[in-house]
Amino acid sequence: MARRSEIIAGLRRILPERAVIAQAVELKPYETDALTAYRQVPLAVVLPEDEAQVVDVLKFCAAGGVRVIPRGAGTSLCGGALPLADSVVVGLMRMNRILEINYADRYAVVQPGVTNIGITQAVADAGYFYAPDPSSQLACMIGGNVGMNSGGAHCLKYGVTANNLLGLRLVTVAGEVLEIGGAHCDAAGYDWLGLITGSEGQLGILTEVTVRILHAPEGARAMLAGFASNEVAGECVAAIIASGIIPVALEFMDKPAIHACEAFAHAGYPLDAQALLIIEVEGSQDEQADMLGRLREICERFAPVSMRVAQTEAESAAIWKGRKGAFGAVGRISPDYLCMDGVIPTSRLGEVLRRIEEMSAAYDLRVANIFHAGDGNLHPLIMYDANDPASFAKAERFGAEILTLCVEAGGCLTGEHGVGVEKRELMRVQFSESELTQMRAMKDVFDPQWLLNPAKVFPL
Amino acid sequence: MARRSEIIAGLRRILPERAVIAQAVELKPYETDALTAYRQVPLAVVLPEDEAQVVDVLKFCAAGGVRVIPRGAGTSLCGGALPLADSVVVGLMRMNRILEINYADRYAVVQPGVTNIGITQAVADAGYFYAPDPSSQLACMIGGNVGMNSGGAHCLKYGVTANNLLGLRLVTVAGEVLEIGGAHCDAAGYDWLGLITGSEGQLGILTEVTVRILHAPEGARAMLAGFASNEVAGECVAAIIASGIIPVALEFMDKPAIHACEAFAHAGYPLDAQALLIIEVEGSQDEQADMLGRLREICERFAPVSMRVAQTEAESAAIWKGRKGAFGAVGRISPDYLCMDGVIPTSRLGEVLRRIEEMSAAYDLRVANIFHAGDGNLHPLIMYDANDPASFAKAERFGAEILTLCVEAGGCLTGEHGVGVEKRELMRVQFSESELTQMRAMKDVFDPQWLLNPAKVFPL
Repeated sequence: MARRSEIIAGLRRILPERAVIAQAVELKPYETDALTAYRQVPLAVVLPEDEAQVVDVLKFCAAGGVRVIPRGAGTSLCGGALPLADSVVVGLMRMNRILEINYADRYAVVQPGVTNIGITQAVADAGYFYAPDPSSQLACMIGGNVGMNSGGAHCLKYGVTANNLLGLRLVTVAGEVLEIGGAHCDAAGYDWLGLITGSEGQLGILTEVTVRILHAPEGARAMLAGFASNEVAGECVAAIIASGIIPVALEFMDKPAIHACEAFAHAGYPLDAQALLIIEVEGSQDEQADMLGRLREICERFAPVSMRVAQTEAESAAIWKGRKGAFGAVGRISPDYLCMDGVIPTSRLGEVLRRIEEMSAAYDLRVANIFHAGDGNLHPLIMYDANDPASFAKAERFGAEILTLCVEAGGCLTGEHGVGVEKRELMRVQFSESELTQMRAMKDVFDPQWLLNPAKVFPL
Repeated sequence: MARRSEIIAGLRRILPERAVIAQAVELKPYETDALTAYRQVPLAVVLPEDEAQVVDVLKFCAAGGVRVIPRGAGTSLCGGALPLADSVVVGLMRMNRILEINYADRYAVVQPGVTNIGITQAVADAGYFYAPDPSSQLACMIGGNVGMNSGGAHCLKYGVTANNLLGLRLVTVAGEVLEIGGAHCDAAGYDWLGLITGSEGQLGILTEVTVRILHAPEGARAMLAGFASNEVAGECVAAIIASGIIPVALEFMDKPAIHACEAFAHAGYPLDAQALLIIEVEGSQDEQADMLGRLREICERFAPVSMRVAQTEAESAAIWKGRKGAFGAVGRISPDYLCMDGVIPTSRLGEVLRRIEEMSAAYDLRVANIFHAGDGNLHPLIMYDANDPASFAKAERFGAEILTLCVEAGGCLTGEHGVGVEKRELMRVQFSESELTQMRAMKDVFDPQWLLNPAKVFPL
């Protein structure tokens, strides 16, 4: 207790009054992120307003051996921003300025607390956008996107955060500022940019992010195709990819997901289908028409139970409203669910979904599957009852079994959400002891005391 | 000397007879790479044939504190494969098998000694290709491409090696085998794939590489546009990029490069132009025609002195023969040249080329500039006389001054060739002492004795 008040007093000495939060009622909102099954109030929260304050906080914490949890918007689905009881949360939401926009060289330099959508909004009038689009893009912040290497439905064409990132400024736990990459900089020396991206706040705290901005396409149009089984829809996905067409998005929903989303969004999803593909193309009107024509032909080979091409932007928007609102939609039928995030070879889609169905029956827990099918990124939503600890425990075991299945199928534990606290014990399923040791040694280099977002990513 | 024979005897104990080279005359070809100004015969060369032999060699060398130089085809332009006198070169050219090709999931698994073009050749009949295309692609090997994160003229559209890489198997100097990424694996934990890519053989030796293969486009066509000055051509590049068209390649040559390449390739390059753009588009015939039409309109705004669109595949091929043969072409007018590799903001192209012209006059050394203009990657070829040590020393100073200029203009020391021995002292121009310390600490993690390709990348 003495230590707690000392730490808070120390933080108050180096930060403005408004930047230190220490009262229980004000700490409460920071006790969890979007993985709400885990909660822990931190010792304190600080909200630095510039890089110098971040440096001061980290130097202070490093000197005192105080653990630090970086936080953006708190939208992590894997508990990436979950506090420890003795930790200081460093919230970056006040560092939300756009520092530079350069259209000639197509980049933007922003602070970590700028929202994902905020970058696109800042450049949209000039005809540009920032490509990665997590479902949480209205809220989630670019600092967190970098920490988790976030993806989104449109990453099939544009890649994930790592593919759209040019440079970073990073403050190490020792308070040193490192410049990594930059607007015109392919890396000389080791590729830090890749190492920091997806390192889940364990190697330093970001103070600036330089991203690639892209020319917005002339337009985009979506189509829906419903199929008689998951397997057939999976074969259609493989045929589309094999055709060489790269849709900007290629999303898959199984029957429970179709019904949940349709009840929520009234987008005209086919309720008689066992599986639905949402396929979007973009470009000029001619290009759209050409690609949609070829996609229709491919889909028709798989005897679709329904097929519909959006005729207007509004129809496309309704189709996406259903998909982007999927989490809310599932929330209406089950207030509590775990959103899993695994990757599998597209060619094994049918088989993996069949196994998940069997597990669902065995665990007696419903599951809806939503899937960035083009890049093999599966999001099973496991529904449970948070008021029943046994139900939650079962849901966690079910989730672990799904992710283990993904790895066994030749895939990966996480596609775009990260490891966090949720999957740390599962890291052993994917990585050997040597591989984990080597990764831990890299953390040692940046953070020898393991103060930055510890107790995550690695098995305890 | 006793130590030398002990090392060779030790290597012979663990490897087949044919895999150990120790005679002076057989060692000679390994004394240099494509940066021929630097030469050093190694202590021995080993040519392992499988991963187990790589493991054995590294364990042996680590136990004896013997330094190790990994080598692919020896095409490095920055001395990446230059031996040390007391080192063992580990040549990977015999590990040249293609292990798996999967068209459904669009990847290939190959050994490090497969040539870059060899991957495309293996999948071309099925309509696929491997995208990054260094000028040395007939010879250079995928292991070296990964080590240097190699690029090429077509990387404007497809990205460099890092963007086309899915997984690696890496043997650490301690002889541990690490699996990094994979065909369907977005990284959980830290992104090793990015860290290893471009680490110039300093963190381990590759034994398998998994790359993305892409559907070949229906066709491609190139056009030429000559301009009255470098500045005007630079403005045209900026206008093309700003238009949102992404050509598959956008190459820039200044007058000396145009003349050297035309004399070599007879491709019909305009000899009256001060600067030439080679612009290539790909897709269906309609898409090509559409894009070429829009590109013509853009070029016409900059009063081209000549403009010509290839009407046939053969004409396109001739245009590319000139560009891809540029190194040979410059070799005809000056047997000795240094090929530099810097990155600048495209918007500062005109200004940087003007400064290089001034330096050329001051150093009294000719220079030809070839430039992946779309991504800002400049290749000045500095011509000198290798029989005159003063001329070489001047060329090196000139090169260092160009790269310093690139960094000052907001760019980078290297785009796609790496640091090697050539640019190690210049790393201080780009990176702070903290940043270099942090990178060295990462090498410590993988290679605590600094046995793997030491004396490169970092200032001595």
